[in-house]
Parts: sequence; structure tokens; C-alpha cells
Amino acid sequence: MSRVQLLFAGADEYTEIWQQAAAGNPGLDLVPYRPGLDPAGFRYLMMWRPVPGLVAAMPNLAAIFSFGAGVERLLANPEIPQQVPIVRMVEPGLTQGMAEYVLWQTLRHHRRIWELEAAQQEIRWAPHWYPAAWDRQVGILGLGTLGQAAAGHLRAFDFTLRGWSQSRKDVPGVTSFAGPAELPAFLDGLDILICLLPLTPATAGILNAGLFARLARGASLINAGRGGHLNEADLIPALESGQLAAASLDVFAVEPLPAAHPFWRHPRIFITPHNASDTDPRTGLAEVLRQIRAHDAGAPFEHVAERKRGY
Amino acid sequence: MSRVQLLFAGADEYTEIWQQAAAGNPGLDLVPYRPGLDPAGFRYLMMWRPVPGLVAAMPNLAAIFSFGAGVERLLANPEIPQQVPIVRMVEPGLTQGMAEYVLWQTLRHHRRIWELEAAQQEIRWAPHWYPAAWDRQVGILGLGTLGQAAAGHLRAFDFTLRGWSQSRKDVPGVTSFAGPAELPAFLDGLDILICLLPLTPATAGILNAGLFARLARGASLINAGRGGHLNEADLIPALESGQLAAASLDVFAVEPLPAAHPFWRHPRIFITPHNASDTDPRTGLAEVLRQIRAHDAGAPFEHVAERKRGY
Repeated sequence: MSRVQLLFAGADEYTEIWQQAAAGNPGLDLVPYRPGLDPAGFRYLMMWRPVPGLVAAMPNLAAIFSFGAGVERLLANPEIPQQVPIVRMVEPGLTQGMAEYVLWQTLRHHRRIWELEAAQQEIRWAPHWYPAAWDRQVGILGLGTLGQAAAGHLRAFDFTLRGWSQSRKDVPGVTSFAGPAELPAFLDGLDILICLLPLTPATAGILNAGLFARLARGASLINAGRGGHLNEADLIPALESGQLAAASLDVFAVEPLPAAHPFWRHPRIFITPHNASDTDPRTGLAEVLRQIRAHDAGAPFEHVAERKRGY
Repeated sequence: MSRVQLLFAGADEYTEIWQQAAAGNPGLDLVPYRPGLDPAGFRYLMMWRPVPGLVAAMPNLAAIFSFGAGVERLLANPEIPQQVPIVRMVEPGLTQGMAEYVLWQTLRHHRRIWELEAAQQEIRWAPHWYPAAWDRQVGILGLGTLGQAAAGHLRAFDFTLRGWSQSRKDVPGVTSFAGPAELPAFLDGLDILICLLPLTPATAGILNAGLFARLARGASLINAGRGGHLNEADLIPALESGQLAAASLDVFAVEPLPAAHPFWRHPRIFITPHNASDTDPRTGLAEVLRQIRAHDAGAPFEHVAERKRGY
């Protein structure tokens, strides 16, 4: 089989570890994009933030591979022709990492970490009571690959699970709700809400004061979807009123989160820098190569974003 | 069937929730012990810290049920006759709670929470790299009910697992090491070490400078066994030297942990107040009742502590 030439237009700080991962892959040449490099001969492009003018200079482009699961930036980019498939990243490392983050954060809120941290800071020995996992109502917004993987681990701990998605999903141990009409019933009385949705016009701003009001009083919010899902102005008031107890946020309307943003200093907001889960360069490249080989053999690309639905 | 009369000698702050749980149980009368109450008629006693003189006043005592998995205090109590079975608590709520704690803390160390917390405090957006779970060597000291339950969840995340116990155990996905001779091989290069051992003369002080030196540099320690497992004087030097990166401690040589103890104020030690997992009064009482009914029907008590092995 011929070696695959993949043009890599990622963030500079990640280029080295992706190059290292590619170096171990006998079927793949990963070529970092640099201004001045002629991209015309490449058929495959891996891209995160769109590079202005790049796609227009690639007449042979057969597919764009996204670094992550979310592709809203690529879909919104007018330079990318409609017929070029945009492939969302679905690979074991990314899925695994997100499941780790979701379980870590869910257990953190389940155990009310803020009470334990305050007690340690105040040098106070204060055993506290927490309910059994099966008495916790946990809801997942988004039941795609990532949501289903997280649900599997949460189910193993016997959390009581609900899921919400555009279309009804059949996930073991998860009560499934679908579409805008069933959103209120999904939310009703949830103790912990996890957002793993794709960002689309239909989901932008879904995490807002009206939604928070439907959760159990003192509920927790975990957002690892996109910053655009949260109406940021509504969060601190909900924490101050006690309607929400705490939040874990991995994504923000503006990234990096500006230094003046009040989220940084709020004692009940735990911030991670869009780092909940990263694509593993080894398994991620193996998946890209697998898709290219399958496509060469006549199969359609998998996990192609649909422009109409927005993900 | 006759109702079971259970004398309850627990900590005062827990009496109410245990009474509430018993109130829903049609086969059981839970009678809180109070000074002045005549215990002579009771056959079953549930006890945590031994109450001086109580057992001597119970000539009909058939069994003592421990509130928790660890029974070293009851075994060390000279007032308890050798022939009275001491039943360790093994019940789903306790097992589940410990698995929650272990996974929560393991993920916390896996993701190097201290870097994320420092970044938030310093208002610094600093995505960091962490290895895949399968590249983490995680070791569990103690492969009993609690260790095996934790191992099951850790395995689901694909951590690379080793376990160490008195006798070799066959636990799926766990490389098993047994006895003192195999302890060095078990420890060699571990990234995260979890202690769930019973406290016996053979395990007291096992977590010491010599053990830490065998782990990977920058390893993490999670102790949810007993305070007596840790040589407390060795921990802060290991953290300061960088041999250990961080520790999560639920148990201490003296509890409550004294206010002057340096563990409280160390930035890389996360303290929980012997609260990693509590017996669930509902499922715990159901288990006690199940054992008593089975014993009445001629079966031996299960999970009886063996004085010779010390747990």
C-alpha cells in the first residue's frame, strides 16, 4: 500500500507529539503545515482552527479530519466547499479521556468536594453524609459516542441515569428523552447535569437560568460540550442563589478564558483549560489511516459531519 | 419469623439514620445502647469502638457485627471472648462507596489535579498533557471485596493494574502478587498506589520511605486502609523530595486528625475525614438480618474475622 500523505494544520504546541506518534506509523507521512508550504498535492488535511486560504489552495482535497469531536468551526468556515467531507474525530483515546473527565467530575460533585475542601482549609474534621449513587439523578445532554461511553461507566456505579439527544437512543440503563418537547421532563429534578452536546443553532445557550430552575435545588453542572452551550451570565447568579451548588467547566465562550473573567475566581467553579479530553495522537492517527484505507477500498467515510443538522 | 433484636452501640451522630433505616425493616428491632440499659437479653450486637464492660454484660451474645470492613479495634479488645464471632461488614453500599472514592482519587491523580488547581489559582490557561490510562501503572494493596470492586472499575478505564495480597488472588485484568517476597516486584515503578489493606501486625507501617522509593518518581499515594498503614513521618519528606507528587488520605494514626498536624496544611495532601465510604444503613442492616436468618437456619456466619490472621 502507498504511504498516506497527511497535511497537519494543528496548534503549534501539539505538532511535536503528533509527529512523534506518526513516526511510529509505517503507513503515514505527517507533514506539518507551515506558511510557504505548497499544499496543492495533498489529498488529506487534519485541521483544528481553520487556516485562512489553505483549503482553497488544495484542489485535490478528499477529506478534512477534525482533531476533535466538535466540528462547528469547520462547518462555519465559508472557505470549505460543501462537497469536501469533514470527518469528526471518533477514536478510543478521545472517548476514554472524556469518560475519565465525566466520571471524575461526577464523583467530585456526588461527594460534594467543596465541603471537604472547605473543611480542610479550616482544619475541621467533618465527616459528611452523601447519598448512594442510585439515589442520584444524573442527566447527560448528548448521547453520541462520548455520552454513551460516559453512561457506561456511570451505570457501573449505579447512578440513576437519563439522557437527552436529538433522536431517541437505546442505551442500556439510561432513560432516553428526545427533542425539545422532552427536554423539561429530562431536566426535572436532576442532581447532576452533564453537557456533551455538539454546538449547533439548536443547542447554543441551552444551559441557561430557565434550564437551571428545572434541576434539583443545589444541583451540579458539568460542561464539557462547548462554551457556547452556556449562557455565561446566568451561571454565577444560579450559584449565588443556591439553585446550583457547583460547576465544572472545560469550555468557554472565549478561549483562553480571559483573565478578568469572574469564573476564574469563583470558589464553586472548577476550571479546566479545554483539556477534559484530547485526541490521543497514536490512536487518533491510526483511526485516520484506517478511514483513508477503507475509503480507498470504496467505503464511505464514517463520522462525517452533516451540514444540515450541524454536527 | 421472629423479629431480630439488635443492640446498636454506634457513634451517637449516626444513631438517628440507622434508626430510620431500621424503621423500614419489618424483621428487625434496632435498640440504641444507652448507659443504664440492660443488655443481657440481646443475642446480637452491632459495635464500632468497643464500649467498656458491654460485652461482659451480654451472656447470650451470639455475634458482634462491625460497622465497617476493618475490625482491628474489636480484635484487639480483651473483653471480647475468643468464641464470639466478629463479623466484618461486607455490604453493597460500603463496597460501592469505596469504589467511588478510589476511582475519584485515582482519576484526580491521573489528571494531576494539583497542576490544574494551581493554574486556576494563578489565573493561567495551561492545557497539560497526561498519559492514557493504559500507560498508568496502578497498584492495589489489598484484593479483598473492596479492592476487587475498585479493580473492576479501574479495569473498565483500562488502567494497567497490579494487586498485592496475603494470598494470590485471581482477579480479571489484575496481575496478582502475594506475600512479602513479592512486594518489591508489585511496587516497582507504580504510578499510583492504593492501600485498602486490613491493619494487622504484618501490614502496620507498610507505607514508608522504603516503599515510596520503589514507586515511580512523582507517584501518587491513596490510603483508605487505616492510619496505621502509613509511617506518617515519611510522607512529607517524600512529597518534598518529589519522590511522591501527591497523596489522598482518608485515615490517620490519630483520628480526628489533630489540628496541629502538618498534613492539614500541605498543598499536595487531600484529606477526607475517614469518610471514603460509610456502610449504608439500609443495605447494611439488610445484610445483618440476612446473616442472622441464615445462621438461625444452620449456616455459619460469613466474613468472620480470624484472630490468627488479624482480619
